[in-house]
Amino acid sequence: MTERVKVAVVGVGNNTSALVQGLALHRQSGSMVGIRRPVVDGLGVGDVAVVAAFATSAEKIGRDLTEAIFLPPNNFPRLDCDLPAVGVPVTKGLVDATEVPRVAAALAEAEVLLYSAPSGRPETARAYAEAALTAGVAFINTTADPVARDPHLLARFEAAGLPLLGDDLASQFGTSVLHNALLRLLRERGLTLVSSYQVNLGGTEDFRNLVQNPDTKMRSKLNALPEGAHSVEVAPLGYLPHLRSRKVAHLNLEARGWGETSVSLDVKLTVHDPSGAAGVNIDLVRIASSALRNGRGGYSSEATSLLKSPPGTAV
Amino acid sequence: MTERVKVAVVGVGNNTSALVQGLALHRQSGSMVGIRRPVVDGLGVGDVAVVAAFATSAEKIGRDLTEAIFLPPNNFPRLDCDLPAVGVPVTKGLVDATEVPRVAAALAEAEVLLYSAPSGRPETARAYAEAALTAGVAFINTTADPVARDPHLLARFEAAGLPLLGDDLASQFGTSVLHNALLRLLRERGLTLVSSYQVNLGGTEDFRNLVQNPDTKMRSKLNALPEGAHSVEVAPLGYLPHLRSRKVAHLNLEARGWGETSVSLDVKLTVHDPSGAAGVNIDLVRIASSALRNGRGGYSSEATSLLKSPPGTAV
Amino acid sequence: MTERVKVAVVGVGNNTSALVQGLALHRQSGSMVGIRRPVVDGLGVGDVAVVAAFATSAEKIGRDLTEAIFLPPNNFPRLDCDLPAVGVPVTKGLVDATEVPRVAAALAEAEVLLYSAPSGRPETARAYAEAALTAGVAFINTTADPVARDPHLLARFEAAGLPLLGDDLASQFGTSVLHNALLRLLRERGLTLVSSYQVNLGGTEDFRNLVQNPDTKMRSKLNALPEGAHSVEVAPLGYLPHLRSRKVAHLNLEARGWGETSVSLDVKLTVHDPSGAAGVNIDLVRIASSALRNGRGGYSSEATSLLKSPPGTAV
Amino acid sequence: MTERVKVAVVGVGNNTSALVQGLALHRQSGSMVGIRRPVVDGLGVGDVAVVAAFATSAEKIGRDLTEAIFLPPNNFPRLDCDLPAVGVPVTKGLVDATEVPRVAAALAEAEVLLYSAPSGRPETARAYAEAALTAGVAFINTTADPVARDPHLLARFEAAGLPLLGDDLASQFGTSVLHNALLRLLRERGLTLVSSYQVNLGGTEDFRNLVQNPDTKMRSKLNALPEGAHSVEVAPLGYLPHLRSRKVAHLNLEARGWGETSVSLDVKLTVHDPSGAAGVNIDLVRIASSALRNGRGGYSSEATSLLKSPPGTAV
Repeated sequence: MTERVKVAVVGVGNNTSALVQGLALHRQSGSMVGIRRPVVDGLGVGDVAVVAAFATSAEKIGRDLTEAIFLPPNNFPRLDCDLPAVGVPVTKGLVDATEVPRVAAALAEAEVLLYSAPSGRPETARAYAEAALTAGVAFINTTADPVARDPHLLARFEAAGLPLLGDDLASQFGTSVLHNALLRLLRERGLTLVSSYQVNLGGTEDFRNLVQNPDTKMRSKLNALPEGAHSVEVAPLGYLPHLRSRKVAHLNLEARGWGETSVSLDVKLTVHDPSGAAGVNIDLVRIASSALRNGRGGYSSEATSLLKSPPGTAV
Repeated sequence: MTERVKVAVVGVGNNTSALVQGLALHRQSGSMVGIRRPVVDGLGVGDVAVVAAFATSAEKIGRDLTEAIFLPPNNFPRLDCDLPAVGVPVTKGLVDATEVPRVAAALAEAEVLLYSAPSGRPETARAYAEAALTAGVAFINTTADPVARDPHLLARFEAAGLPLLGDDLASQFGTSVLHNALLRLLRERGLTLVSSYQVNLGGTEDFRNLVQNPDTKMRSKLNALPEGAHSVEVAPLGYLPHLRSRKVAHLNLEARGWGETSVSLDVKLTVHDPSGAAGVNIDLVRIASSALRNGRGGYSSEATSLLKSPPGTAV
Repeated sequence: MTERVKVAVVGVGNNTSALVQGLALHRQSGSMVGIRRPVVDGLGVGDVAVVAAFATSAEKIGRDLTEAIFLPPNNFPRLDCDLPAVGVPVTKGLVDATEVPRVAAALAEAEVLLYSAPSGRPETARAYAEAALTAGVAFINTTADPVARDPHLLARFEAAGLPLLGDDLASQFGTSVLHNALLRLLRERGLTLVSSYQVNLGGTEDFRNLVQNPDTKMRSKLNALPEGAHSVEVAPLGYLPHLRSRKVAHLNLEARGWGETSVSLDVKLTVHDPSGAAGVNIDLVRIASSALRNGRGGYSSEATSLLKSPPGTAV
Repeated sequence: MTERVKVAVVGVGNNTSALVQGLALHRQSGSMVGIRRPVVDGLGVGDVAVVAAFATSAEKIGRDLTEAIFLPPNNFPRLDCDLPAVGVPVTKGLVDATEVPRVAAALAEAEVLLYSAPSGRPETARAYAEAALTAGVAFINTTADPVARDPHLLARFEAAGLPLLGDDLASQFGTSVLHNALLRLLRERGLTLVSSYQVNLGGTEDFRNLVQNPDTKMRSKLNALPEGAHSVEVAPLGYLPHLRSRKVAHLNLEARGWGETSVSLDVKLTVHDPSGAAGVNIDLVRIASSALRNGRGGYSSEATSLLKSPPGTAV
């Protein structure tokens, strides 16, 4: 019988809510809906269990994880399944490097540490990576902060025989994936792109934060569009609280075909952003666990299609 | 210097209008906009010349091809280029097999016969194929009527060292191409399709004819959607004269991702149907010419991606 | 205290499902969501009670109304409210005029007879109107079959002091309402309409029936678009079972403003057709009851905005 | 015969380009396309002539108005009409109040001064109003800067018998007009609004400026949506240079109907912003001229529907 993959998560936001609830839904119903890889190296979705969680919000600390995931500003919906308490109280997360030993001790039971906090705090990300090294667990960085891209840190994980996956998770189905697929399709069919835009609207705390710092995100969005990017424009993100955890994207592509006649595509995409993250995290966790169990430390190229900035890309 | 590819066309409808005007535009401006394959086996777009044309409408017969393409019910727009008379008067097309010798004689100058009449007259299509055999020219069938799929006929072209390409042209960029690409993308990303529909609206004579016989076209559309087709619905075609040669398609895809949360895609596509045909015909003509010049009779697999029903598919 | 408005309904389809469930929802929650007129002549929504129901399907006859409304082909969703049995078994409806006395007897308790069967059976509609006259109850015809437009029949209701409202219910919010509002807005702002279309897709039994007889419905749709109708095109209805009781409409309006520059509007509307009917029926029922209680027989002009073909319009 | 309405314009941007070109188009073709009011108090569109123009850009000053309107950053398209030079060289505009006499002198021939510069320079707007008072011409303020809303200034125009129209032009057909019409329609039909958003994208210099100062514009947009505004969200403006003078708006309205079932509306609007301005300016100019010729100084209520902030609204 397969031993459970024991995961500790940093961050008790919407993405963790989607992960925890989706796992409960899968266990109860056996549903394979929306699951990209039923089995990764022998590990099923139901083999993953969250055994520890770290957060910094005073309201969340001490609460059972199954309660904490519904506290504001979280706004991912309550899925249609029972969610019995898992007996995992949320632990106080670390604020600076002096707390690494405490966090490492709290990882005693875990096999993988999934770093799923907001982007923009590289020192914190690296401190958790240190805790993983100390505790001897695999580390996954889903934020844009450079961790796996740091060659020195990666070498230390390799030497310790511990997997290190990252950086910056690529959503299971988001605007970049869709926009790129459409740009590629036009090119394959021989159409000439004239112009294109995307507008992204969302209602999560993440969106609110990104709106404060739009240039970074827009550049990241443009970086994610390698093909014909000179004709592609990304409008500022819009924070619309009514959308809650949904993201809405409007895309337009204007092209020309034979005889220079026009071809127009208008697309509206609606997704739940946290589901897009959890649907990828469930694969990263199993890749990390499998690597650990097989003694493969460092980065696994199997993770590359799930990441925006794997090792070797620019910091 | 490359010798011109001399093409005779059957049918002086919108698709021929798009082909003739697009060739003129390319020659004048050198523009490569919307051209899928600049060069096919050494043959450029500008190497193709239309040297004969057959039609059955009394208004078109005898007129210079560059005038005839603008007569009703044709409604493909006048492109923004000069269109000097080419000295190719439209010839009376054949009505039955007794006229094969007359048509064959009229093909004296041609190298390729492009059959671009409306679908639904298989006897006529085959009579023109006979004329091609008699005259010793390659034959391309862009209609859904079975010609290249007839093994006996194909064997005769092979024996004669004459190329035979068909059947049923796949548009350079149409609803099926787009719908399939989106269905494939959802599947690749691990989403579960719940339902999907497409509605096609157009204003050409072709559309008017298809609306009379909607079942055939809807079945053909569904056949063109192999993936997840049980969840995909195709609404009846709508003939909307105001659209003229434009086609508008509305697509919807409803899926579920991680946690069974919903993912929605709504798409509006606007294209000029005749451009989609001409953009593929320009490639088929060059593939046929190249095969002829290199002594390869029969079918060329290079054409397969440009056809909906190549040899071997069901009649 | 206001006496309840006792309604008998003919037809136990989606529209009756929406009416019955919406009434239960309102009573339980007191919710005023989506209710156009909270009070009509002193009568609240909660004052309406369904006391009898007629149907012809063997599966429905004899069942409690609260069960029968969920039997196929009905596909209006189960609303989020309790629905206790109302003790109203579905009665066998009439097939021909000989059964008028039986139906009239079954109306003993009722005050209003709401005829909510499918359109297209004028003889049946008139037989129920006869039953209403016999039983001394008000009659509402929501179908396109001419009843209130029959001057002779209307005169008999007037003479009997019984209200007669009809014909052909205008949905609370449907494609015609929206399309007309947009055409009117363009005109008010001085834009010149170039072209416009609407496509209607739905998944109810009604839609399936209408698809069989598209000309009638398209003409009716065009009749409902008096403004600039020469530029407006209505595509064939599409029956898409996946949509169930939802209707999806795609509208496009192309216009020109100052300097003849283009103005484009693309709209997607999604509604539940049966809710659109029930939201109007609840008003018609109260108008009829109020008229009856106040001794006003015949037609009430208060109903005119709720009907597509009130008395005086062409049959 | 009607005497021409002689107009001087301040600002040689896109709006002036649309006005000047649209007038030329109308004169040549007699076309009434997109013209809201063919005649205002006896004055036709063709009765309006631009006789002076003021600008601050060195490139524009001294050029004939018909050339200057095509200089960057202007990007309104060249309409399909001849545009002979009008013999109106662009005059250097004023920078401060000391130049009022010079500008007043340059208004000798004019009857109406149309202030069509970018919003945000209230001192400049008032200086031009002073010049109009000095020269004895009517004044129209199309910007959001308070001029007609200044009671003292309005009183001086009244006393002088000079018309003063403003402030802040309402586009002939823009996002606010459309969004309000849809919100009103939902309300009239008794639907309950749940949420709504609008996103505005554009490529003009105006858009670029507004993006720098998004709060002001978003507040103005929300002010323009009196109905159900608490449920309506306005996303940040997006400056997308490819759009040039087109504006694209995406609107969404989510509501509930009978039984609390959902009603969704998704709208894409594409317009040329400068045409929307010019189509209203042509009416304001004729209202002002008519008032002047009839000795009615001060504000004309006939202009109210063409303005966002007429006298009496908050500054």
